[in-house]
Amino acid sequence: MKKFDKFVTNAVGRKVPTIVNGKEQVPFMGVGKYRPTGNKAAPPIATAADYPEDGNKTQPDLKTALIKAGLKDGMTISTHHHFRNGDVLAVQIFDIAKELGVKDLVWFPSASFPCHQPLIKYLEDGTIHHIEGSMNGALGRHASYGKMAGLGVLRSHGGRYQAVQDGDVHIDIAVIAAPSADAFGNATGDRGPAACGLLGFALADSQYADKVIVATDNLVPFPCIPWQIQGNYVDYVVTVDQIGIPEKIVSGTTKITRSPDRLHIAELSAQFCEEAGLIYDGFSFQAGAGGTSLSIGVYFAEILKKKGWTAAFARGGSNKYLVEMLEQGLTKFILDGQTFDLEGVRSMRENWNHVNTSPFTSYNYHGKGFFGTFVDIVIVGATEVDVNFNANVVTHSDGLLLHGIGGWQNTLFGKCTILPIPLFRDRIPVILDDVTTITGPGDLIDVIVTERGIAINPKRTDLLEAVKDSKLPIKTIEELKAEAEAICGKPKKARVDENEPVAVIKWVDGTIIDTVWKVVE
Amino acid sequence: MKKFDKFVTNAVGRKVPTIVNGKEQVPFMGVGKYRPTGNKAAPPIATAADYPEDGNKTQPDLKTALIKAGLKDGMTISTHHHFRNGDVLAVQIFDIAKELGVKDLVWFPSASFPCHQPLIKYLEDGTIHHIEGSMNGALGRHASYGKMAGLGVLRSHGGRYQAVQDGDVHIDIAVIAAPSADAFGNATGDRGPAACGLLGFALADSQYADKVIVATDNLVPFPCIPWQIQGNYVDYVVTVDQIGIPEKIVSGTTKITRSPDRLHIAELSAQFCEEAGLIYDGFSFQAGAGGTSLSIGVYFAEILKKKGWTAAFARGGSNKYLVEMLEQGLTKFILDGQTFDLEGVRSMRENWNHVNTSPFTSYNYHGKGFFGTFVDIVIVGATEVDVNFNANVVTHSDGLLLHGIGGWQNTLFGKCTILPIPLFRDRIPVILDDVTTITGPGDLIDVIVTERGIAINPKRTDLLEAVKDSKLPIKTIEELKAEAEAICGKPKKARVDENEPVAVIKWVDGTIIDTVWKVVE
Repeated sequence: MKKFDKFVTNAVGRKVPTIVNGKEQVPFMGVGKYRPTGNKAAPPIATAADYPEDGNKTQPDLKTALIKAGLKDGMTISTHHHFRNGDVLAVQIFDIAKELGVKDLVWFPSASFPCHQPLIKYLEDGTIHHIEGSMNGALGRHASYGKMAGLGVLRSHGGRYQAVQDGDVHIDIAVIAAPSADAFGNATGDRGPAACGLLGFALADSQYADKVIVATDNLVPFPCIPWQIQGNYVDYVVTVDQIGIPEKIVSGTTKITRSPDRLHIAELSAQFCEEAGLIYDGFSFQAGAGGTSLSIGVYFAEILKKKGWTAAFARGGSNKYLVEMLEQGLTKFILDGQTFDLEGVRSMRENWNHVNTSPFTSYNYHGKGFFGTFVDIVIVGATEVDVNFNANVVTHSDGLLLHGIGGWQNTLFGKCTILPIPLFRDRIPVILDDVTTITGPGDLIDVIVTERGIAINPKRTDLLEAVKDSKLPIKTIEELKAEAEAICGKPKKARVDENEPVAVIKWVDGTIIDTVWKVVE
Repeated sequence: MKKFDKFVTNAVGRKVPTIVNGKEQVPFMGVGKYRPTGNKAAPPIATAADYPEDGNKTQPDLKTALIKAGLKDGMTISTHHHFRNGDVLAVQIFDIAKELGVKDLVWFPSASFPCHQPLIKYLEDGTIHHIEGSMNGALGRHASYGKMAGLGVLRSHGGRYQAVQDGDVHIDIAVIAAPSADAFGNATGDRGPAACGLLGFALADSQYADKVIVATDNLVPFPCIPWQIQGNYVDYVVTVDQIGIPEKIVSGTTKITRSPDRLHIAELSAQFCEEAGLIYDGFSFQAGAGGTSLSIGVYFAEILKKKGWTAAFARGGSNKYLVEMLEQGLTKFILDGQTFDLEGVRSMRENWNHVNTSPFTSYNYHGKGFFGTFVDIVIVGATEVDVNFNANVVTHSDGLLLHGIGGWQNTLFGKCTILPIPLFRDRIPVILDDVTTITGPGDLIDVIVTERGIAINPKRTDLLEAVKDSKLPIKTIEELKAEAEAICGKPKKARVDENEPVAVIKWVDGTIIDTVWKVVE
């Protein structure tokens, strides 16, 4: 199996391999340019004759279930990240694989976290061949120095659904950690001692994997309702002592920023939206769970209250601020992709209009549309932006791969995508001639809001026109870049070996938008 | 295309064709004996690039949508029957096909009703080649006399999901009538002027059809929640004046029986369940919407109340009696497959534990199990039963095909299947040496309750043992048959031409369990 082969230059001018881990690849061709042919993945037909008539699919433990599922060398094992840094299952799976002497596995998580650092030893000893999925922190650092046997493949949440649906990734065994489940395999995330809200990231895995194992620390009588994961897709159910560490399930980042600079950026962003006429009775928005994004949401709520308006829906990452908006009637719906705090979990359980979504409904580019394209305002972050509005969320300017894509690429399709970012971080400019890794093309990024001014993508003449008479500090992106460089100096390029890829970044359609290179110290 | 060819005798001794409408068939091999190979159907991969960015998929009218969907000769068009005898859409679709001069269509409804009688003219003029689905009343009579160009193919609700999922039936265009929908295609049945409860019968159609049209008379702002049908599967949305006739949507049969004989049968059935120990704290049951079944449900409720017990779940066909049980805490859940009255619709909208199910979760034999196998007590009807407990629900003793299978075959997998039936109808015995059409094999039918006694399938030695000391009128099925014949005389066999099939009856696994023959007058 060739780790990589033959590089070509793609539509955003990046050098990308045409073979990755033995599979042929398509280079990024531009937004909406690649046209899929062929048909969706077709899982084997099961028969109820092979499953227990009493519906009891329980197995004594995870090891037994993995053995019954046929765990063997070279398989692809998927997990999901609804427990975020409180996940305990992924490490257990590979501990078992190691114990059984199974080699060359592909780990296909929906995201990875610092709690997965113990897996580095399995990357080193050959238990895991490579990771297809985000590699945050230690795992990313490990991969960045070229220490992984295969190439990393990073996908957005929507891209992950697309890859599974289209058969780009075949999952042999999916392990779904469920805060509540019944013996038939129906599972939900919105209740139980380790309640995390929803399980949408595991939906594709349940639908398309050959074998599906549900693990839970809260086995409930049939039927486990809501059945966010349907038992009709599930082969085995195991109970474990603890499915996740509750205090780590809730993200630590869901607090409004106290930094004066970031508050200023948040206020400027909200002001921009208001003055550009993007906020109206019935508008919709997506704001992440970072401190700045949360603050912008709070400004939106204030504007709605002042005007007596209601948002049609707020796209979450839900959190207590969004829940307050919902319960105060400031938004009609929360369309939730990932619950970020316990108020979000409670609200999803209690409010019919706090809706459990999945990457299929929200983000899948290879569906008959997805609702991400008609969210009015999207607020997301970036580690770097270039003068063509291309943005990076996966690497730092030193070349290290430290973050996943999450739903970031998918959200860019919104009607107006705004990146509220500081002009520099640790005296390193954020606006550059070229970003280290293009994660999203400038075509889809409309506005950059910094503490020293707002740059609008010149393609958005409508937005430039809308705010031309305002008092907003509108500048060109080149002006912002120059200001940053005047303070911090010209930034250094990352020291990387551009013949040694360590990972590729998939666009939402499965094409490769950029390559992450080996960092040279 | 050969309408039929080469007959063989299947595992229940019935003569069945090996070719139906040009496609090879597998004869019924016994319950759980046929093992599917191969993979599920794989719909073409779509791309969001082909769908409107603003999510607005509306088309001016149904005709435009059908033309855009590529309606042409020989296509398979699916509809669903949540509006029952109040459906107005199916006839409109074929009116349009006729107007466009399209021929040889296959109509693939989830069920048909008397309101579809106007389609006979399209069967006659070649617009419709044949119907794959139930043919109640006039359509069935038409087919029974051999007047349809192709063979009818009847499937259970679960078998219909199986056929679509497995690729046995490829739907070219699905038209989904929705009581509420948004412009993106999300749709629900639980609200709107023509609210019918759920839309589960259209689930497979939405997932697997090449083109999906949602028609609604109640277009709501995005998002239409709950999205029982997800817009990500939908191509076009059309608004129509009326999607169904509300007063006909509600089944007329959901009234407790007043017939003393039937009340007696109901009481005997409930008594049997109690004395056989089938009712316990946490048991589950499925009772249909017929008068006798409803009465049995009411007896169950009384037993639960008396004992202070709670059912784990009631499988519906929901109706006001089941809703009362739910709201009085006598059952923890209603798992609803089809809402039979407005109280059912209201409850589904209001009660989180009144659950919208689909043939996938409830009935699909080619899944990883289905919950129908662990329902404790199943109460269903039959037109005829034979001395081997084989039963018929589709034809009458004159050979006429007058009823669909519904979920009947699927429910037989429950732990104890009870058929409460009169010993004779219109002086025609119901228990026979041979049923006209085997719709369900005797292996799965456990108990026959008549006004003159109860027959237990000899295979169920456990049940025979459980009631041996009771005062219940336990008899053999031969005894019951003799009693009927003593009163009515030996029944006449239907006058049919056993070389001229008019329809086939599929078993839940896609094999053919019996043939319906042309009626000779």
